[in-house]
Order: sequence, then C-alpha cells, then structure tokens
Amino acid sequence: VTRDDIPTPALLLDLDRFERNLRAVAIHLSAAGKRLRPHAKTHKCPEIARRQIAAGAIGIVCAKLAEAEVMAAAGIPGLLISTEVVGVEKIGRLMRLLDRDPDVLAVVDHPDNVGDLARAARAAGHVLGVLVDVDVGGRRTGARPGEPALALARAVVDSPSLRFRGLQGYAGQCAHVVGWAARREAAGKAMAPLIETRSLLEGRGIPVEIVSGGSTGTYDIDSQLAGLTELQCGSYCVMDLDYLRIGGRSGDRLTDFEMALTVLATVVSVPAPDLAIVDAGLKAFATDRPFGPEPVERPGLAYEFAGDEHGRLLIRDPRGVVQLGERLEFLPPHCDPTMNLYDRLYAMRGRRVEGVWDIAARGKSQ
Amino acid sequence: VTRDDIPTPALLLDLDRFERNLRAVAIHLSAAGKRLRPHAKTHKCPEIARRQIAAGAIGIVCAKLAEAEVMAAAGIPGLLISTEVVGVEKIGRLMRLLDRDPDVLAVVDHPDNVGDLARAARAAGHVLGVLVDVDVGGRRTGARPGEPALALARAVVDSPSLRFRGLQGYAGQCAHVVGWAARREAAGKAMAPLIETRSLLEGRGIPVEIVSGGSTGTYDIDSQLAGLTELQCGSYCVMDLDYLRIGGRSGDRLTDFEMALTVLATVVSVPAPDLAIVDAGLKAFATDRPFGPEPVERPGLAYEFAGDEHGRLLIRDPRGVVQLGERLEFLPPHCDPTMNLYDRLYAMRGRRVEGVWDIAARGKSQ
Repeated sequence: VTRDDIPTPALLLDLDRFERNLRAVAIHLSAAGKRLRPHAKTHKCPEIARRQIAAGAIGIVCAKLAEAEVMAAAGIPGLLISTEVVGVEKIGRLMRLLDRDPDVLAVVDHPDNVGDLARAARAAGHVLGVLVDVDVGGRRTGARPGEPALALARAVVDSPSLRFRGLQGYAGQCAHVVGWAARREAAGKAMAPLIETRSLLEGRGIPVEIVSGGSTGTYDIDSQLAGLTELQCGSYCVMDLDYLRIGGRSGDRLTDFEMALTVLATVVSVPAPDLAIVDAGLKAFATDRPFGPEPVERPGLAYEFAGDEHGRLLIRDPRGVVQLGERLEFLPPHCDPTMNLYDRLYAMRGRRVEGVWDIAARGKSQ
Repeated sequence: VTRDDIPTPALLLDLDRFERNLRAVAIHLSAAGKRLRPHAKTHKCPEIARRQIAAGAIGIVCAKLAEAEVMAAAGIPGLLISTEVVGVEKIGRLMRLLDRDPDVLAVVDHPDNVGDLARAARAAGHVLGVLVDVDVGGRRTGARPGEPALALARAVVDSPSLRFRGLQGYAGQCAHVVGWAARREAAGKAMAPLIETRSLLEGRGIPVEIVSGGSTGTYDIDSQLAGLTELQCGSYCVMDLDYLRIGGRSGDRLTDFEMALTVLATVVSVPAPDLAIVDAGLKAFATDRPFGPEPVERPGLAYEFAGDEHGRLLIRDPRGVVQLGERLEFLPPHCDPTMNLYDRLYAMRGRRVEGVWDIAARGKSQ
C-alpha cells in the first residue's frame, strides 16, 4: 500500500523524521539530566506513546481523564493527568482507573478537590499519587506559588489516602513566544516561583520527588532549570508550523525537530487557471492559528480555507499548476487539534504505508 | 439520566427547539412549493437525518462520499454527494455504494471526471444519476454557468451509464452576508446564472428535473427563486452564533430558527476571583470564526480559549461568579465543525437525557 491508495483527506506521519525527533529529545534531556514525560494531548495515539517510552520516556502526560483511560487500556505506564479531576462522575472514573493502574498521578489546585479525592480514594481502598498544580503565570489552572501551594501540599500530606509526589507548573504562555532569547527570559521568570515553591516545601520538611513542566517551545531552556525533574514536551515528536515559526536557539525557525506530520489531500476541481480545490477544509485542519496550512515542497501555490470540506489552492505562478486528481501534502498550523480530527494516522516510510495507527483517544476530552 | 450525569465536555441538543426548527423550515418551504434536501455536513448524525426525512425532507445532501457511505448504511434515502468524486479509489467506492443504493446522486464539474464516472458505472453495470455542479461565484467547485455547463450536461446525456438529473449551485459566499436585504441582493445576483443555465439547457432540449442549492442564511430568499427546485439548508436544524449574527428578514438576529445546540462544560479550577477554568477548549469548539463561544444565560461571564483542553471564564461582575464543579452550557460559534469534534450527541428534553445519538459520520471527510 502506498500514498496513492490512501483515502483523502488523511493524516500522514513521516517515520524517519518522527524517529529522529524522538532521538533528538532523548539525547538532549539525557545530557541535561532530566526525565521526559511527553504530553499525549498532542497525538492521542497509544502507538506513539509506546514508541516514546521505548525511546526513554518515563511515562506520558494526559490532558484529561478520558485520554488516560485509553492509554491505560493500551498498557501505557507512568500516566500523569495534567488537568484537575473534578466532580462526582469524573472522580468515580478516576477510582476505577486506579483499579487498573495504581500508579496514575493526579493534580490538585483547590482544597475542596483534595478533600473529594481523599474521601473517594479512602472509600475505594486506594492511595492516589498527587502533584500540586502551581500557577506559573498562564492564567489557567494552578494554586498560587508559595504559601497557597504549601498549604495545599500539607492538605495532601495530611490525607492518608493521598500521597504527595511533587509539583506541576505548565507555562503555556511561554511556549509560543517568538525568538529564543525572549522565550528564555519569559520562561525563566515564569518558572522561578515554581522552583522557589519546591525549596519552600523542602524547607518545611515536605520531600518533593517530582517537579514536572515545560513544553516543546522551551525544551532546551527548561532542561537547564535546576529543580525541575521532568519535561512535558508534546509537539516535538511531530512538530507544526506554529512551533517552526517561534525560532530556535540558532535561527529564526525551530529546526531542532523535523516536520513529521502532514495532511494528504486530493485536487477535486480545477475551475480556473489560477484556482484548484482540494478535499481538505475546516474539518481537516485545526483553525486556531492566525495562519493556514502550507503546501509541502510546492512553490507557486498557497492554501486558503474554502468551507467545512474544501480548501482553495491559489496558483500564483506556472510552477503551481496542479492536475485534477493530483495528491498534495500540507503542513498543519497546529498539530494537537489537527490530530484530534482524525481517527487514524498513516505511518509512512517514504511513500510506503508502514502502519495505520489508531488515534484511539481522539475526542476523549472528558 | 440527567444533565448532571453527562461526562463533559459534551454536545447537547435541545429537542424542543430542534423539533420546532424542523417544523419551521417544512412549513416555509411547503408554502413556497420547494423541496428540502438538508445538508448532513452540519450534523453527520443518521438519527438527525432520519428525523429530517420524517419531517418532510426528500433526502439529504452529503459533503463527501464517506459521509454518504455512513448515511446509506443507516438506511437514509435520497442521498446527493455535493463534492465531486475524483480519483480511482473514490470512484471505486462510489460504485460499491451504488450496489447498496442505486439512487445516490453525484455532481460533476469537469469532462475528465464525467468520462471516469461513465466508464466505472458502465463496468459496474450501474446508471449513475448526475447533477452538473455550476459555479455561482463562490470560487469553489463548479463549471462556469452557460455554455460550459451546457457542454458538460451534453457529455452526461451522451453517456449511457450516466443519467442527467439537473444542476447544483451552492452560493456559500452569500450564506453569511450580514443583513437580510444585502443577503437578498447578493443571493439574487449569484443564483441568476444558475437559473439562466437551466433555461439554456431546457431550450436545447435537455430536461432539468432538479436544481439544488441554497443555505440556512438564504432559505427565505432562495425559496422565492423560480427555477430552483430544492434547498440544501443544513444549519437551520441546530443553529449557531454565526447564523444568529447575520440577522433575519425582520431584525438584526436570525431568530427564525432556535439555538438548539450547546456544549456542556465543567468548572475545573477557580484560581482567582475574576477567573474560572472550564474543561472545554480548542478541541471542544470549532475555532474558525473571529468570535468565540458564549455562555448560555449567564450574564457577567465571558469565555476565551485557553489551550487545547481548557477555556477561561472571565468574571466581569458578581453575577458571573461560578463554583468549582459547576456545569455551564455554551453556544458554539459554528455548528458544523463543532459537531465534527464529538462522537455523540445528548438529545435533551429539558434537563433529562432522552437519547444519545451517534455522530456516525464524524471525521468522515474522505
């Protein structure tokens, strides 16, 4: 089976590039003495998680409980659920997940939630491993650093059915800062209170085994941060246009990792000399970035969205002329929500399909 | 089972509103003497298609072949595939679909595709019903109106394994024009060449049985268009913020149809007095509009995206204060790609879950 046989639109993974990405991050983090627990919200694909672990990751991060349920069912170890598990329905499911995998880690940022988790774990006969989620300036989840985080850690330590394991701080606002120097400055400022909170807890006699954070954008910045024990990079394994644009340590494009993910589409109409229509639109690419997909190695062509199920190719010069039925690949603006649109991934070795992998946690945001 | 038991984020359909929407369009189009073949790209849900047909629709439109495969497997009659079916792989699947449902209609806009379809149908022993897709100014698919469309119709008529049934013209560029009068003017100009093409064909002795087009935005404009036989409205059954904002015949909001679709989310963090975080982000709502989701009947609150799996609630005044674990509903900006994110729809009668419907064609863009 080759690229020509794949029904389009379809998601393709270039295995050579993907494998080099796994090696590159492993070499960097190993040299820096940090662990890697990559974020599975990027790919939602157990086969990718399996290969990340084979390449040295200690486990994976799941954004949501439902993602962790899928990964646990696939036998993936070392699960950390990075969003607070709140409410009777979800806490009940978390307890059933612990029946299968007692090592799952949860995060907390509110004393009421600590109480709810402790009661549920006690009733279910479990001891739940917990990180305190610390706000590092992203205006998202997390207790304030310092005393509020300490108070929460104490509440966890004081609950026999919970086991305090450490801290999480995700500085999502730094991940996409354009320019490496500016990103280093932003990440340094954001993460300092997390590391100070670690020191505060240890000074009060609370051992902090895990400090988890970081992103693909700051992987080579956070890796230098004393006090952080593990990185949660996700996009590095497949990359996207957004991360490419933020630039790297030595240039205005982040080329430390290779663009391994594309969407394959077919030209279904050639209505005018300067225009062609492909079968990939708003349902084939995430649309949350201010720029659109880019054709791979096809100069003279630009893509724009043309509705739910269509894309418009603007043919700028003769190099861009395409034929009816021709197949083209496009780089997605943002990998995570793009992968979340597809049920499967075609793992390519050149033009040959080496495997078809289920994106089994697609849509599992619950 | 009630709203409180649903794992979030989840897609909810208010059945009372949905049923009134089905009745409202049926009454209007029946009075106007037009048929309805609603577009299933909105919902991708066989149960909704079934109810549309029970309410008087003559069939449904599918954006893509894979959508039609799902609808045919569910026994939905009267399928029209509104995107050209191009390439060996897809034409092969279309022939297998005809084995199951010989009434499926395809559209064409290129003579090469007419030849490919004719050869495949002849080899498979089928007679495929075909509409000529006419470009009505949307810079998407479609042959130019007039002589080019006539030439294509002749090619279809001359192919014994094809049966010419009529014309399709979808003026997507008019559907979202803000202001009813401006929209009427735009739609009138766009659709005139389609109707003239009908006359041209009939003048040359080619009977035109079907002329299919129209959208929710222009439903009460296209319904007055002599020469159009059926409308393809899709969003009317569930509605969204985008269609609400375009305005109706008698006001600056389109209230002819009711807002029946919401996303249910849970507050998972309350990190600051002016801020709460819900478990619905870029993977819970389509993001292709320049505005975001709106909380339902919750003044003092605004939503903004906060990453793949989170949304930020900005609490503007004391009315907007929310509790940890509280569940809120949000109106989606754009219904079609939002529904395409979910595997199921909770059909609600008030706060009670009356049914859970598979969005069986979700992701079926191939």
